[in-house]
Amino acid sequence: MYRRSMSYAAAQASIGDSEFDRDTAITERAGEPGVYDAELSAGWTIIAAVNGGYLLALVGRALSAALPHPDPFTVSAHYLTSSVPGPAVIRTEVVRVGRTLSTGQASLFQFDEHGNEVERIRVLASYGDLAALPDDVRTVAVPPLMPSYENCVGPEAGPAPIPGSSAIVDRLRLRLDPATAGWAVGAPSGKGEMRAWFELADGRDADPLSMLLAVDALPPTAFDLGLVAWTPTVELTTHIRRRPAPGPLRISITTRNLAGGFLEEDAEVWDSTDHLVAQSRQLARALRM
Amino acid sequence: MYRRSMSYAAAQASIGDSEFDRDTAITERAGEPGVYDAELSAGWTIIAAVNGGYLLALVGRALSAALPHPDPFTVSAHYLTSSVPGPAVIRTEVVRVGRTLSTGQASLFQFDEHGNEVERIRVLASYGDLAALPDDVRTVAVPPLMPSYENCVGPEAGPAPIPGSSAIVDRLRLRLDPATAGWAVGAPSGKGEMRAWFELADGRDADPLSMLLAVDALPPTAFDLGLVAWTPTVELTTHIRRRPAPGPLRISITTRNLAGGFLEEDAEVWDSTDHLVAQSRQLARALRM
Repeated sequence: MYRRSMSYAAAQASIGDSEFDRDTAITERAGEPGVYDAELSAGWTIIAAVNGGYLLALVGRALSAALPHPDPFTVSAHYLTSSVPGPAVIRTEVVRVGRTLSTGQASLFQFDEHGNEVERIRVLASYGDLAALPDDVRTVAVPPLMPSYENCVGPEAGPAPIPGSSAIVDRLRLRLDPATAGWAVGAPSGKGEMRAWFELADGRDADPLSMLLAVDALPPTAFDLGLVAWTPTVELTTHIRRRPAPGPLRISITTRNLAGGFLEEDAEVWDSTDHLVAQSRQLARALRM
Repeated sequence: MYRRSMSYAAAQASIGDSEFDRDTAITERAGEPGVYDAELSAGWTIIAAVNGGYLLALVGRALSAALPHPDPFTVSAHYLTSSVPGPAVIRTEVVRVGRTLSTGQASLFQFDEHGNEVERIRVLASYGDLAALPDDVRTVAVPPLMPSYENCVGPEAGPAPIPGSSAIVDRLRLRLDPATAGWAVGAPSGKGEMRAWFELADGRDADPLSMLLAVDALPPTAFDLGLVAWTPTVELTTHIRRRPAPGPLRISITTRNLAGGFLEEDAEVWDSTDHLVAQSRQLARALRM
């Protein structure tokens, strides 16, 4: 369903040398082990706010540097205050080091007008080594039923997949399943579903860190429910289950229960070899716009 | 499907005066605000280990005391080392206080032979006030298809629902859906499902704290997959979506993907009025016994 012969493949960026890697770069402070300076890029904003998945990828990179294991296995993030483009500092703590798994904590801070640190997001995570896992898979999960890459809808087809002036649109190659894109023309399905093919715009392949971005990069399922709502994340937990194969990801997000002004968003991420590579769930508020 | 006229109803314990409440009691240390002493009861063990949901309820109670909002909305727990019955201390931190939600962190420690604190579980949680939420519900979720309370299987019917010498069996009134109890007689369904009616044995009604126990109190779905495996929790995140009505809960747990020695367990909790009151997901390891 996806062919590498597409014209843009020639200019493909690689893991380690891409927009995503440059914009999630961290620098450990001299004399302060586990403390990393970073710059939140304006390239990953939705309207004015920095995307929560981009933030998570940045924190995930810092934890990967701080912990002895390289890959996020489960990452729980609680979102505290809205982030803005500009300087940030990530403070990590090694909580426990084990043979198979290590657990760490990290907070990302920005600065108020007096230079005081303001916490944006706090994360607890357990890391391991995906390459060290046995290859056994026993699953009843099946990839989402959705049209081929070519038959899904990119921004060139009409309405922007994310409304407003959102820089992140240019960093992603997001092709929505037409069945979940009706909201863009005033005809939401009402089912609370969102499905898309996902790639970084410069063609960089997916890896565990970019999947922390991917799980929070689709338009909100609330749009497909017919709500004109802003749905800020309260908490987002992501399980990275397998290293993704090269090629675009398929992401399927479902909301089943909107109650008392809160909703869950369950995401599954599938790679080009039909493996379930990540699962996530977030609790979000539904705030009428 | 459930009738209050059952004979045990006369001796029913109440919220605040029950085994569960006594065994999750905490005492704030004089002069150390936010630090709580507790005693892990031997009554909630599975074989030798203290149940992870019981631990979570204890930490949840401490956070409820430390934060200005009473109810857990989303609780992310990373399990570090195995707990044993005996003294423990819970150290809490107020991370952020907002109007609708507050976020806190807590760690539960026990003590090594030199009296040094050993961290058992670390928790990030956002709390709110369930009673303050509007009553709107918009959902496509439906209660699990399972037999009535009377037609599910309690311990009196034959094999213990949890194998081994497990004290927790006496604290719970757990009635398994026969369709997910076949493993107890050597005939697992292979589907990775577990469903049960759930009550505390002394008849105390459910509340948000007891639901933190409930989501981790059923036999592991691995048994229904036909695995003889110990599946320790790496991380467990629970969303409490609504205050449960009196009466037994129905809990449905599903595992779809066992890969690389890890599996997810997704739980839904339904109350006696057919409301979805909690959702949880855990990442667990599958270790052959």
